[in-house]
Amino acid sequence: MKVGFIGMGIMGSPMAVNLLNAGYEVYVHTRTRVKADRAASAGANWCDTPARTAQNADVLITCVTDTPDVRAVLLGENGVIETGRQGLICIDMSTISPKATVEMGQVLAEKGIKFIDAPISGGQKGAEEAKLSIMAGGEKADIDAVMPLFEVMGREITHCGPLGSGQKTKLVNQVMVIHTIMSISEGFALAEKAGLDLKTTYNAVSRGAAGSHSLTNLGLKIIEGDMKPAFMVDLQVKDLKLVLEYADQLKQPLPGVGLVRQLMGSLQAQGRGRDGTQALVDVIRQLGT
Amino acid sequence: MKVGFIGMGIMGSPMAVNLLNAGYEVYVHTRTRVKADRAASAGANWCDTPARTAQNADVLITCVTDTPDVRAVLLGENGVIETGRQGLICIDMSTISPKATVEMGQVLAEKGIKFIDAPISGGQKGAEEAKLSIMAGGEKADIDAVMPLFEVMGREITHCGPLGSGQKTKLVNQVMVIHTIMSISEGFALAEKAGLDLKTTYNAVSRGAAGSHSLTNLGLKIIEGDMKPAFMVDLQVKDLKLVLEYADQLKQPLPGVGLVRQLMGSLQAQGRGRDGTQALVDVIRQLGT
Repeated sequence: MKVGFIGMGIMGSPMAVNLLNAGYEVYVHTRTRVKADRAASAGANWCDTPARTAQNADVLITCVTDTPDVRAVLLGENGVIETGRQGLICIDMSTISPKATVEMGQVLAEKGIKFIDAPISGGQKGAEEAKLSIMAGGEKADIDAVMPLFEVMGREITHCGPLGSGQKTKLVNQVMVIHTIMSISEGFALAEKAGLDLKTTYNAVSRGAAGSHSLTNLGLKIIEGDMKPAFMVDLQVKDLKLVLEYADQLKQPLPGVGLVRQLMGSLQAQGRGRDGTQALVDVIRQLGT
Repeated sequence: MKVGFIGMGIMGSPMAVNLLNAGYEVYVHTRTRVKADRAASAGANWCDTPARTAQNADVLITCVTDTPDVRAVLLGENGVIETGRQGLICIDMSTISPKATVEMGQVLAEKGIKFIDAPISGGQKGAEEAKLSIMAGGEKADIDAVMPLFEVMGREITHCGPLGSGQKTKLVNQVMVIHTIMSISEGFALAEKAGLDLKTTYNAVSRGAAGSHSLTNLGLKIIEGDMKPAFMVDLQVKDLKLVLEYADQLKQPLPGVGLVRQLMGSLQAQGRGRDGTQALVDVIRQLGT
């Protein structure tokens, strides 16, 4: 099976390498060619454009930054739609707009190209270790057909519903995540101002009702002042914009997400967009200094 | 060892029963005598006033609602301070103001009465099953002296620091908890409005970065429309008021807690103060209907 893979970022690159290591023939393209070096070393074939990447592919995967990037790669000049054969299955593993996903699926369908949205969770570590959670939307037959690829890249694979459901589920995931980041940010800011020993506080609360994946995985980083990213502020804000745009389309106000998105913006204003999301604790601290 | 126990609520009553079952001689008092029936059946001796409860006690435990209640019981008319002997150890297991805790400790110390704050987490179930988390503040020697009692009532016991540190840690715990309640409330409200299958969504997100104790323990209740309390809205709001009062004293703004406290107030306005905190999802839903 020939796989096209567009987007050699911190997620896409290790995902393509995992496909290569599993024996797939992989054709890659990305905006900045040097980013494809790692996949090329693992045996990937370089293609100059999205159209050429799709030319001989049975499956074409995109893993890029945002909605306009996916649209350009799939439907733009030298895009996948120019060369993709009838029956090609496109899988978009970026996190983008659910509405745009459905719209692009309609355009692709007119050319006989199938479309699956399959955004991922698990970060760079999950991509490297092939332990991603994959939230897939689309026709069951199409998802079944590409399941062997998903199983090479991820561990927990859920068919969430029709096209767009993967993106919807991913946005729900991001809503839930961001509040747990707020949980540890306001919690530790208060603990610190109260003069508590933070490690003792962590031990007292982390296994009870206050517990969260974020507390377990980012709590000690906050205590140690380690702001290196498991997930970057810039990407989190991008995702929260998608959440709020989608919630607006649904007429579902989310005041909590709105607040956190604004506070996250303060980190970007301070030039800290490449810090990890746990840096939100500093914004809360700054409110009290 | 003779133990006085004041406050036979949904927490205090089973805690006193656990002490009785462990062989302690327990003297009880509570505002509404009928609430002491269960402890009396287990062998507790009824006392008409806090003063009488403290009269022969080596250790005097309070587990009542709020700061004024603890102050009345310990320092008010017919209060513990009137009869407590020199060397009596008072343990307040209510959730109240850290500042008031330190002030009451000073008054008690003038009479030679020792004071420990030891608020609890784990809810009615934790109290019944003797699996409470206990966050203790005070002198190490005093805490060591009452550790056998703590071990009868709870499982994870942390000495958080000097007097008041237990309450501070409990308030940090409540900050962290409330954001995880917001996490599942906004998350499920969005998922529902998006037309996602909620159980599938739960399965896709609960074991990853979105995971929390609240998602695991209250998520399915939301999906099933079960609003019975693990922890009541009225008590959550009471605790959030304590958090915000204390944060004000420290000059540490907590905008997220402020927002959630206001939204929780909407449940009280609707007469739903005795629902479980997961009912917050209905407030978010109402914003979108």
